[in-house]
Amino acid sequence: MSKQAMTELKQIMNEVSLIGSTAALLGWDERVNMPRNGSAHRANQLAYMAGLLHEKFTANRVGELLKMAEDSPVSKDPLAPDAVNVRELRRVYDKRTKVPNQLVQAIAHAETTGQSVWVKARRDNDFKSFFPHLEKMIELKRQYAEAIGYKDVAYDALIDDYEPGATAKSITVVFSEFRKELVDFVAKIRNAPKKPDVSIVEREFSIDRQRIFGETVAAAIGFPFSEGRLDITAHPFCSGIGPGDCRITTRYNPKHLGQALFGTMHEAGHALYELGLPREHFGTPMGEAVSLGIHESQSRMWENMVGRSKPFWKFFFPLAQQTFYDALGDVKFEDFYFAINDVQASFIRVEADEVTYNLHILLRFEIEQGIFDGSIKPKDLPAVWNEKFTKYFGITPKSDSQGCLQDIHWAAGLFGYFPTYALGNLYAAQFFAKAKKDIPDLDEQFAAGKYSALLDWLRKNIHSQGQRYHAEDLVKVVTGKKLDHKPLMGYLEKKFKPLYGVK
Amino acid sequence: MSKQAMTELKQIMNEVSLIGSTAALLGWDERVNMPRNGSAHRANQLAYMAGLLHEKFTANRVGELLKMAEDSPVSKDPLAPDAVNVRELRRVYDKRTKVPNQLVQAIAHAETTGQSVWVKARRDNDFKSFFPHLEKMIELKRQYAEAIGYKDVAYDALIDDYEPGATAKSITVVFSEFRKELVDFVAKIRNAPKKPDVSIVEREFSIDRQRIFGETVAAAIGFPFSEGRLDITAHPFCSGIGPGDCRITTRYNPKHLGQALFGTMHEAGHALYELGLPREHFGTPMGEAVSLGIHESQSRMWENMVGRSKPFWKFFFPLAQQTFYDALGDVKFEDFYFAINDVQASFIRVEADEVTYNLHILLRFEIEQGIFDGSIKPKDLPAVWNEKFTKYFGITPKSDSQGCLQDIHWAAGLFGYFPTYALGNLYAAQFFAKAKKDIPDLDEQFAAGKYSALLDWLRKNIHSQGQRYHAEDLVKVVTGKKLDHKPLMGYLEKKFKPLYGVK
Repeated sequence: MSKQAMTELKQIMNEVSLIGSTAALLGWDERVNMPRNGSAHRANQLAYMAGLLHEKFTANRVGELLKMAEDSPVSKDPLAPDAVNVRELRRVYDKRTKVPNQLVQAIAHAETTGQSVWVKARRDNDFKSFFPHLEKMIELKRQYAEAIGYKDVAYDALIDDYEPGATAKSITVVFSEFRKELVDFVAKIRNAPKKPDVSIVEREFSIDRQRIFGETVAAAIGFPFSEGRLDITAHPFCSGIGPGDCRITTRYNPKHLGQALFGTMHEAGHALYELGLPREHFGTPMGEAVSLGIHESQSRMWENMVGRSKPFWKFFFPLAQQTFYDALGDVKFEDFYFAINDVQASFIRVEADEVTYNLHILLRFEIEQGIFDGSIKPKDLPAVWNEKFTKYFGITPKSDSQGCLQDIHWAAGLFGYFPTYALGNLYAAQFFAKAKKDIPDLDEQFAAGKYSALLDWLRKNIHSQGQRYHAEDLVKVVTGKKLDHKPLMGYLEKKFKPLYGVK
Repeated sequence: MSKQAMTELKQIMNEVSLIGSTAALLGWDERVNMPRNGSAHRANQLAYMAGLLHEKFTANRVGELLKMAEDSPVSKDPLAPDAVNVRELRRVYDKRTKVPNQLVQAIAHAETTGQSVWVKARRDNDFKSFFPHLEKMIELKRQYAEAIGYKDVAYDALIDDYEPGATAKSITVVFSEFRKELVDFVAKIRNAPKKPDVSIVEREFSIDRQRIFGETVAAAIGFPFSEGRLDITAHPFCSGIGPGDCRITTRYNPKHLGQALFGTMHEAGHALYELGLPREHFGTPMGEAVSLGIHESQSRMWENMVGRSKPFWKFFFPLAQQTFYDALGDVKFEDFYFAINDVQASFIRVEADEVTYNLHILLRFEIEQGIFDGSIKPKDLPAVWNEKFTKYFGITPKSDSQGCLQDIHWAAGLFGYFPTYALGNLYAAQFFAKAKKDIPDLDEQFAAGKYSALLDWLRKNIHSQGQRYHAEDLVKVVTGKKLDHKPLMGYLEKKFKPLYGVK
């Protein structure tokens, strides 16, 4: 009986995943290929697929089957694949069935109007016009949290959508220590005696050659072009279409080497995770990524801990010099390495470096917390933003467009999403430290152009696990310790102190 | 009541068309973009979408709604959009519900195995190994025809899948006269005193420049890049993804100017038809193409009657000379025009010219007729093929790979499909003659680089009609006469007699 229930449940989830992966292709194509007059029909296709997926996933029968499975021996060993699947499907099923349809539609509507108002508000530096939409979105998200329920604070219910199991409290434990040390460290670097000459990576880098170099690097770190593509798009992303098909995108700036290159490595990191998930479990939680934070840990590790490391460039710098001879022929290795590791307090998150990026996130996390516990009023957002920003970065935004209006997330209702970016860095550092311990000659391998030992380690320890563990437990299982800011702080200090000549 | 029925029917058909157009994107992507390891999952996605579409379309409720609409005033004026929709949906609904599921699956299975056997059989010139699959496919298709029913001969039921309303008899009326005259004409050209120097279009034509030139030509004849794309693929095709999104593909041969160029114009002709269908009727028969033959008339007209015409090249030859200066700089206009209109009896249909192509089709049509009326035994196919071929073309295939094994169609169960290719040429000529009458200065317009008058004429007379008429009636409505071989024969004679110096 329980076996039959599992079979039927998987059959339904297989349908759901076929619809979902088809919607993924519709979305990828929309951003990469679609001729512009196709957009109205594409919206209809996507809406239809979303509706179909929701209908299949939230069917009463799914609830019945979950109940049958929960009451059966399937759920006895909580780490066995079927038990994991039942646990995770239950979690998502309850969420999706608890929220009234009317509220789902109100949020969808507010997202659409909110985003178009936000585009103008950011352009015109006009917080006032955005404010009513922001307030409304917060109210709707509060209702959403109430509908789903939570143990501690409403914000927890939102975080759970992106980082299952994490809470405001569990994140605060890590973030608050991290913030103190990071603010100090950023201040030290601001006043450091040494500065890189970034102009050497802002020369002419032909797009054709950047493409060749980027594809070479992607292939070197293990991105399989037999199972993926690299295309151009305005806002780079990674999209898994299904087993054996995961696609990444980038954008080329002919006056900057790093943008496309590190962006490509970042998206390749996401893709390696997607492609490393256990294919025999495709369509069920055991075949899916743990959380946005764990996903981000994979992209950040390849982008920063590998791609911006000295050993990596020991191998690739000669190739880069030959490929971009006019730009890099006269550049010294140490100067190049320093230039791609430029750290500077800046206003815009998406342009931030490996160090200050985290501060951008910590600030947003604190504000989101404040908004949902009522200690920050939406109307005070610009003032609170600028005050915190000045305190953490030592510089003050000159406009709201450079401040609280810079990101699309709140306009799109994505409260609880930001913390996953910094969690990604924290997870990455803790995983990477363990990988280095397990593979003592990792630096030598990187310097020899070999990246498969790290990839194998990630596959074995992280990718192959699917959703067996929530992020919090996965970190403990893999590294033997719970999440801590020390590995990341240690990594940053070890790397940047000598570069900047600070203590 | 009937209004409600129509609304519900259209709602269901809207769903069907969203699923169908999504499947179209899955198919386009498979052939243009998909990384190779994505094929297994893509097959699952396509199969799921096909099943979903079939389930929605053949639901009992659709039959009930059709009955309600048929018994209502909706069907009073037979040419009103709703009446047309009911008529055509009924036709397809009956077909799809009459064929037992078991037979559908048997055919699908035979198609898959048949095609893979055929690939090897053609490569190895081994009719024997293909024969049992051919015989089985014919038997299954005969059962299919019996399940659907027909008035006259079983073959009619197959033709109707591709050319609704056409029958073996109605096609024979046109084809048999045409054949007599065409065989004579091909013989005359074979013995003609003048021959073109085709080597001038077989020089080096860089793919980059071919692409630019091809896109320029496509845009000039009205293919809107805001509503479409031109990509590269192994077997060129046109795929409508939905209103405002129709994509074409081509393949470049660096040693041949014509292949990609005329292929692009051919596919653009298909796309202009798709994009010209009335968008307000999208998802219903009134928003769909009449038949494969009418579709082919659009592609052939742009490819041959426009693209291989003297007025067209009066405008484009100087541009071609500049674009491909090394190859065409020393070529005279008249020699170029003759070279792109080379006529030669050849064994392979897909490589045939504008004149002999039709003979390839007439031969296949006669064989298909014979197979289904029992006068040709499948085992005799090679002998029958070679005998007919020699009679019509004056040359004899040296192998079955060059003969009856050359096309994939029969392996894929596509009996009744071939005649639509020649019908396309016949329709095209009859339409084009009428268009020239309606627009007396068409040649002058072409020579001035203007193609919108022809496109407007096609839109008004053909594209905007959707499926209001079956092909037979559409030809009558547009040209005032029923389909006849004379316009095509006249067009061919007028064009090729002076070129080849024959009378």
